[in-house]
Amino acid sequence: MTTTTEKIKAGILGASGYTGAEAMRLLLRHPNVEMTLLTADRKAGQPVEEVYPHLGGYGLPDMISVEDADWNTVDVVFCGLPHGTTQEIIATLPAKVKVVDLSADFRLDDPETYAEWYGHEHRALELQKDAVYGLTELYREKIKSARLVACPGCYPTAVLLSLVPLVAAGLIDADDLVIDAKSGITGAGRGLKQNTLFSEAGEGLSPYSIAKHRHAPEIEQEVAKAIGRAAADLRVNFVPHLIPMSRGELITSHVRLAKGKTAADLRAEIAKLYEGEPFVRLLKEGAVPQTQMVRGSNNCVINVFEDRIPGRAIVISAIDNLVKGSSGQAVQNMNLMFGLEETLGLEQAPLFP
Amino acid sequence: MTTTTEKIKAGILGASGYTGAEAMRLLLRHPNVEMTLLTADRKAGQPVEEVYPHLGGYGLPDMISVEDADWNTVDVVFCGLPHGTTQEIIATLPAKVKVVDLSADFRLDDPETYAEWYGHEHRALELQKDAVYGLTELYREKIKSARLVACPGCYPTAVLLSLVPLVAAGLIDADDLVIDAKSGITGAGRGLKQNTLFSEAGEGLSPYSIAKHRHAPEIEQEVAKAIGRAAADLRVNFVPHLIPMSRGELITSHVRLAKGKTAADLRAEIAKLYEGEPFVRLLKEGAVPQTQMVRGSNNCVINVFEDRIPGRAIVISAIDNLVKGSSGQAVQNMNLMFGLEETLGLEQAPLFP
Amino acid sequence: MTTTTEKIKAGILGASGYTGAEAMRLLLRHPNVEMTLLTADRKAGQPVEEVYPHLGGYGLPDMISVEDADWNTVDVVFCGLPHGTTQEIIATLPAKVKVVDLSADFRLDDPETYAEWYGHEHRALELQKDAVYGLTELYREKIKSARLVACPGCYPTAVLLSLVPLVAAGLIDADDLVIDAKSGITGAGRGLKQNTLFSEAGEGLSPYSIAKHRHAPEIEQEVAKAIGRAAADLRVNFVPHLIPMSRGELITSHVRLAKGKTAADLRAEIAKLYEGEPFVRLLKEGAVPQTQMVRGSNNCVINVFEDRIPGRAIVISAIDNLVKGSSGQAVQNMNLMFGLEETLGLEQAPLFP
Amino acid sequence: MTTTTEKIKAGILGASGYTGAEAMRLLLRHPNVEMTLLTADRKAGQPVEEVYPHLGGYGLPDMISVEDADWNTVDVVFCGLPHGTTQEIIATLPAKVKVVDLSADFRLDDPETYAEWYGHEHRALELQKDAVYGLTELYREKIKSARLVACPGCYPTAVLLSLVPLVAAGLIDADDLVIDAKSGITGAGRGLKQNTLFSEAGEGLSPYSIAKHRHAPEIEQEVAKAIGRAAADLRVNFVPHLIPMSRGELITSHVRLAKGKTAADLRAEIAKLYEGEPFVRLLKEGAVPQTQMVRGSNNCVINVFEDRIPGRAIVISAIDNLVKGSSGQAVQNMNLMFGLEETLGLEQAPLFP
Repeated sequence: MTTTTEKIKAGILGASGYTGAEAMRLLLRHPNVEMTLLTADRKAGQPVEEVYPHLGGYGLPDMISVEDADWNTVDVVFCGLPHGTTQEIIATLPAKVKVVDLSADFRLDDPETYAEWYGHEHRALELQKDAVYGLTELYREKIKSARLVACPGCYPTAVLLSLVPLVAAGLIDADDLVIDAKSGITGAGRGLKQNTLFSEAGEGLSPYSIAKHRHAPEIEQEVAKAIGRAAADLRVNFVPHLIPMSRGELITSHVRLAKGKTAADLRAEIAKLYEGEPFVRLLKEGAVPQTQMVRGSNNCVINVFEDRIPGRAIVISAIDNLVKGSSGQAVQNMNLMFGLEETLGLEQAPLFP
Repeated sequence: MTTTTEKIKAGILGASGYTGAEAMRLLLRHPNVEMTLLTADRKAGQPVEEVYPHLGGYGLPDMISVEDADWNTVDVVFCGLPHGTTQEIIATLPAKVKVVDLSADFRLDDPETYAEWYGHEHRALELQKDAVYGLTELYREKIKSARLVACPGCYPTAVLLSLVPLVAAGLIDADDLVIDAKSGITGAGRGLKQNTLFSEAGEGLSPYSIAKHRHAPEIEQEVAKAIGRAAADLRVNFVPHLIPMSRGELITSHVRLAKGKTAADLRAEIAKLYEGEPFVRLLKEGAVPQTQMVRGSNNCVINVFEDRIPGRAIVISAIDNLVKGSSGQAVQNMNLMFGLEETLGLEQAPLFP
Repeated sequence: MTTTTEKIKAGILGASGYTGAEAMRLLLRHPNVEMTLLTADRKAGQPVEEVYPHLGGYGLPDMISVEDADWNTVDVVFCGLPHGTTQEIIATLPAKVKVVDLSADFRLDDPETYAEWYGHEHRALELQKDAVYGLTELYREKIKSARLVACPGCYPTAVLLSLVPLVAAGLIDADDLVIDAKSGITGAGRGLKQNTLFSEAGEGLSPYSIAKHRHAPEIEQEVAKAIGRAAADLRVNFVPHLIPMSRGELITSHVRLAKGKTAADLRAEIAKLYEGEPFVRLLKEGAVPQTQMVRGSNNCVINVFEDRIPGRAIVISAIDNLVKGSSGQAVQNMNLMFGLEETLGLEQAPLFP
Repeated sequence: MTTTTEKIKAGILGASGYTGAEAMRLLLRHPNVEMTLLTADRKAGQPVEEVYPHLGGYGLPDMISVEDADWNTVDVVFCGLPHGTTQEIIATLPAKVKVVDLSADFRLDDPETYAEWYGHEHRALELQKDAVYGLTELYREKIKSARLVACPGCYPTAVLLSLVPLVAAGLIDADDLVIDAKSGITGAGRGLKQNTLFSEAGEGLSPYSIAKHRHAPEIEQEVAKAIGRAAADLRVNFVPHLIPMSRGELITSHVRLAKGKTAADLRAEIAKLYEGEPFVRLLKEGAVPQTQMVRGSNNCVINVFEDRIPGRAIVISAIDNLVKGSSGQAVQNMNLMFGLEETLGLEQAPLFP
């Protein structure tokens, strides 16, 4: 157990993106962490205050170029770089530096699947082998001893927390998972795109990347793993929608029940698995998950509902995509990797309204 | 054909609700209609300007109580009253007054289903028998000669326009329709409810009435009818979500293809059916329906996408819930009932951004 | 009077911007206009449907490069090009083509002021001399015979409609105009900027260009003109704010009354001046202007309120920045320039909610 | 100094309102406070989870009626009851219970002014005499020894923090304060009102209570006090606007400089006064305050800008109305009243985006 007198020195690579900002927000209140390094290539040389005015006045170090980073100043890096780049940078880090990766670079086990979806060969296959998939509640023990944790995508986090227990227990059909996903607009990042302008995305709603989103193979990999099948043999329906709100993600999964099983069986399984978990909570019967319940927090709320079609059920989960869906889960994983209390820095209650 | 010198005299019952306001907005620009009667019980005696400031200055009559209505002053009424009440009022109207009903009162053929979902016996069964279901594109001929048209719910409009052609043609499985619906907040009306306050509904998203929404039996009735089955034997999955925007509705239907059929077959069927329709449009292959495409207009846009799960497809449609989903379709039906050009009063292009 | 059989052929230069889109929306319903030319340099070769999906299906011509424009195909151009460029293009047009300019290029009479605020010498001073400032209600007669009309900026439109009558009548002090302005985000255009991303501009509010906005000298010019003073001798306070909504603009002017004058005197003057105007409306005493009253319409609503500070009053006006604040007023001006009914194409009632 | 083993027992009266919810959110993370009492008359008997789902799972006590409260279980109450009621309840509390009042009941020193603005005689004049006005940074010493602290209104907090130092130092004219205020919709509370429905308040903007808002006399009282004048002799312009966002408040004050003074002088004064303050921060020269900088935090950001009108300046401040504008400042005051570190429970960095 690290003592508070000797703080963990953390670096954030790609600190100018939303996941970087969120990592800063959370780590500012972490009693055992000191932020010693912030990199942001295009913002190199700028104080945090200019890149993120809400974080001004907290004494954070200025942004520098990743090339100017002195790796001796960090015990751990949170890596929010673009995919591909991540692999190259991480491969150059000293072995003593632990890595919590927020990019997609080490999530997919299979190099061919990676190449198919990300458009280039994987550039750090050796590292990939050691990477642990960072869905905390399901991989907690492995994460504790990992050097490199690949945090899941925001959608897979909310999808897998609610569905993996159910497929693993044989309660639902893994080959008929209809996953209708909705996300706030921060999910698209801080890059300048026409479709995320206020006047384009506001007062309206649209699906995107229909059945072609990069999080689909990630979901398939983990669902397949849960039932001992090959990822290549399993396909899920995954349709994300862009919702006119900044944060929040809600997954409506329409599932087919195993013979004789009911929505109540699903609830019971989820209740059992997550009993005592600090951040994952099955709501009371009938209570409806809303993103408003989790905003700004590391919480995930889940519930299950009967369908009108016999033999079907509806599983709903909600998270804040920037917290449990990325930087919060990253901090949760870092806590495990350093033998700290898992909830440190993450105790803040949700912000509503 | 009515000449423009003799305008149709229209009344709006329940003019203080959003569907009433929208009917006023559209009829103000209808060359053949004059609004002679506006009722709103709790706002009786008030000028329109106080109830809807955006409609001030247009010379509309003051709101009066429905009890004070002189039915001799109207040729047609648009009825936006609460369910139950509608039945009672309409039953008292002179036979010469045509009725375009925006409530749920005459949508369900089966009195038992009505009683089950609306909590009381139907009070105007005789009228129910003559009511025509007002989904214009699918019931056009019947509407032309109807005295009482029951305009569909907003969700059924968007669902049925996209799915009925496909089940009718045997292209998809009517017993495995997963209908994930999203609506703007005007869908909940102007009544005061905590969950539709700005600070509650904004910056967040939630499902509601999960598998228990009153539009489900309406959808089932029409899908069953399309394939000659009894409504009672058909069940659909229907999960609506409340989206932080005022207007707009998008339906993501996850459907199972009939053996050997493809998403392309679905597109072809929809293209064929709606060719030449003024308001329903199949988008180009790959183009994604958005509610932003139809805001303020009577348009419906549709498209079909391949799913990753073999044997499945995704059908998406979008409308403005207050226009094609209620008052616009009502005006479209009125045009048919009076032998007018179907598009009159509805030619306005969508408002974007 | 142009007959409907021979439509005015209109071109829109810079059709890919928001003012271009709005001009298209309005002209689509103009009975005497046909859009024959749409230019958009970076979108050249694309159908309208790809640039603005909501305008698909209306049979508009494809976008072309301004260099490929055949000026023989147009009677009038609406010019929504960036400043500077506008001057160069317009200077090359055949004299028979009328110009309704939506840019800032011909708004400022004084070349030095133009150069100071826009960073370069004016490139079409000859044209500038003939340009008429297109604030319709105040320059109606001049506009009728103009070849080139410079439509005012969105802020000046709402400011001047409410304040010019009052300074002209000597009712308020022109040297103590405090103009606190609020605008929706479309005012910043469709260009990609970080501060207009949904996640940056949503759920928040900020002033910008504080006392440095380019619309300040435009306001000063017209206020000075109204009282026969030199623009250089008059300074106004002008602080715009970015509001998390797409459309709409509201101006709160805090004014000092001339000795002995009251808020009621201000109301009376405005009432007198705008009596019978189709688009400018003084609200009933005490009724509060809201942008919700004018959305999507060419309307401007105004009212005046007593202040708590003796000798002061508060004047409030609201418009839709894309309609009366730009493309709607442009169409209104075009109607005048071609001897048409001033309201053609602009009769649509506001969209609310 | 209270030790952590013996926590302060806090009650929240009126816990079902937004200020109550925000107090719960903040106190949940306060190391020295335990919430032992939550009252909410209409929600009596309900668990917190039903009234505020985002606060479910934290082990808070159920809501009870204020009549059933056992005052022996609390050391301090946060009082978020409606005005009038507050006076009656507080008057019945045992003297040992400290009171942090979030209502308007004890803000106004002068009973006549209270009666004029709140419509009834003050019912606890004895208590009023002992009440300390809880604008922490300006009344810190008095608050430390107070039993009853009357937290300022949200608007007065943001207004006074930025203006009082300037009038007190004689840098600006107290008789020409034009205060243009903008607030998110939570400022209107959780009560059901038509104008705060999402579909009414969204995508639009309006002023309200123009020069008639109850916070005006509160501002006048404190400005007058700062310069030793009678409140009755001082009038400010105060025009609040309702902005389509949930949280946040921004004040644009248009001020007249004392002879020879400049915006730089104003900045210097503010910098001097707030140096070392944990929550109030003067931004760098030219940096623009935004509500996005303070969301969810107890921070207040301020800056000063030159005006175009000679002799004038613009002072801008921003806060989160639910935190520094109410419950956060309340916790800050409680900390002082109990001899705790002033920042406890309030260290969370702002939430952006």
